[in-house]
Amino acid sequence: MKHDIDIEVSEVGPRDGLQSIKTIMPTEDKKAWVSALAAAGMPEIEVGSFVSPKLLPQMADTAEIVAHALTIPGLAVAVLVPNVRGGKAAIEAGAHKITIPLSCSETHSVRNVNRTHEQMYEEVRGIVAMIKDLPADKRPVLEGGLSTAFGCTLEGEVPERKVVEVAEKLMEAGCDEVGISDTTGFGNPATVKSLIRKVQAAVGKEACTGIHLHNTRGLGLANALAAMEEGITTIDSSMGGIGGCPTAPGASGNIVTEDLVFMLDSMGLKTGIDFDKMFEARRVVQAALPDEPLYGFTPDAGIPLGYKPFKAVA
Amino acid sequence: MKHDIDIEVSEVGPRDGLQSIKTIMPTEDKKAWVSALAAAGMPEIEVGSFVSPKLLPQMADTAEIVAHALTIPGLAVAVLVPNVRGGKAAIEAGAHKITIPLSCSETHSVRNVNRTHEQMYEEVRGIVAMIKDLPADKRPVLEGGLSTAFGCTLEGEVPERKVVEVAEKLMEAGCDEVGISDTTGFGNPATVKSLIRKVQAAVGKEACTGIHLHNTRGLGLANALAAMEEGITTIDSSMGGIGGCPTAPGASGNIVTEDLVFMLDSMGLKTGIDFDKMFEARRVVQAALPDEPLYGFTPDAGIPLGYKPFKAVA
Repeated sequence: MKHDIDIEVSEVGPRDGLQSIKTIMPTEDKKAWVSALAAAGMPEIEVGSFVSPKLLPQMADTAEIVAHALTIPGLAVAVLVPNVRGGKAAIEAGAHKITIPLSCSETHSVRNVNRTHEQMYEEVRGIVAMIKDLPADKRPVLEGGLSTAFGCTLEGEVPERKVVEVAEKLMEAGCDEVGISDTTGFGNPATVKSLIRKVQAAVGKEACTGIHLHNTRGLGLANALAAMEEGITTIDSSMGGIGGCPTAPGASGNIVTEDLVFMLDSMGLKTGIDFDKMFEARRVVQAALPDEPLYGFTPDAGIPLGYKPFKAVA
Repeated sequence: MKHDIDIEVSEVGPRDGLQSIKTIMPTEDKKAWVSALAAAGMPEIEVGSFVSPKLLPQMADTAEIVAHALTIPGLAVAVLVPNVRGGKAAIEAGAHKITIPLSCSETHSVRNVNRTHEQMYEEVRGIVAMIKDLPADKRPVLEGGLSTAFGCTLEGEVPERKVVEVAEKLMEAGCDEVGISDTTGFGNPATVKSLIRKVQAAVGKEACTGIHLHNTRGLGLANALAAMEEGITTIDSSMGGIGGCPTAPGASGNIVTEDLVFMLDSMGLKTGIDFDKMFEARRVVQAALPDEPLYGFTPDAGIPLGYKPFKAVA
């Protein structure tokens, strides 16, 4: 993380947002969006995923988007991969960070990527081997994503000890860090805090610094606040909350970047992100996806009159 | 507060929600809504305000709604009043709790109710005198509402010391308690915590237990969480978040009861509220206000599969 920011907002809209909608954003628009996000000061962007274009045609141009993003100085370029094949493509593309998600609910893992947990650890080991072959200064960070960490739409409850076990095994398999992911929006501030504590106790605080939240039941920012109170310093979010279910406005998208950034900045936490340029980036998305609803309250309400970030006074 | 709940949700939809929309909800629908809310276990409902029906025709039937609400066993019946005249009507109606809001921004106070702070304290003293004339067991609780506590759309910043001063003067004037109100949605978790601490330090913790939040910039539930962490035990909210600005969905309504109750319950905090009956009450509002948008994510997403409230395990 950059030394001059307190909380790192990791924009996942170009990956999680775009893979969740039917419209395929044209490559040039994706590049413009990534550039606008970076110009606003976004420190990290998950620009796509290396998956089969048959499964997710929205992500077919990921290598080209990575190449574009790598031309932007100072930007951390992240991608998601489901397996060794994707990991190889991500390494070849030169991504700075690779996330391989593993569903803590094994039922979900099998249903979603047709892999048991053991098979997934094998994929991780395969990627780790490739990374170790690289020169030290070319090695991407490998994050294991603890998906469905707060519950699963197939299995229901996912016990904390299962999530801790998966975290430990991902670290044993060679991940640099693990990220807790509320894929299903089942989390609440109490479970968020409790799980972070347990995972950090198992793998170390420095190996569990990020969280990925959805706003499924409106608790997204409260969960983000709870996570920060437990020492989380990287928070995923999606511009305009894109990827939400169109029939239930806002119901299942990621937490909204614009509102998250307003919350952090107003609390006096440095994000490195400029409000006006962030709203400009939103207009880029709006123009590229005219038929997709964009969420978030801050863009409509605007920045408060006489706005100043919080600064504690006696 | 009832002894068997941890956090008291105070439903303000019939007052703050309905006074913010043009549609006038018919009296019988209001009664049905209040009954449905009480049936769901809502411990306290602000059922209306005693204001001039010329100014707010939506509130003209408040006395009748209070009378209806008082027939429901165990329900705390709250109303809002702007002055002595309203206070008299509220006392005559038999409300259990009376809130008189005072805008901490004097500009806003003058513009909104044509009263300086000194004039408002005089109104409070007038109400206190009437309450003292009542037999001890008939006296309503009098709350001073610290409006625009986090900033004002006219003045911008409202200094913490001004809010503390208003809180102290309201208590000196005879209020039983003060409630912090983010009328304009300018608050964030850091300012919420800081202001609660300062007001509680000035007037005592037991005299500052409630908060009134808006979701103007999407931070409503995060602010509620922050408030609870500082010992706040009564949180206002509005079913369906009604009262939001129709041109900017969700942009200025109160925090949404349904999502707040889900957050609290899922955290393992007892609210006394039943989810299914709460959703039934929402359908009553929906039927009575077919043209008003209702907000909230939990009603669309539903309660998670295998749902259990949080319970800390080692």
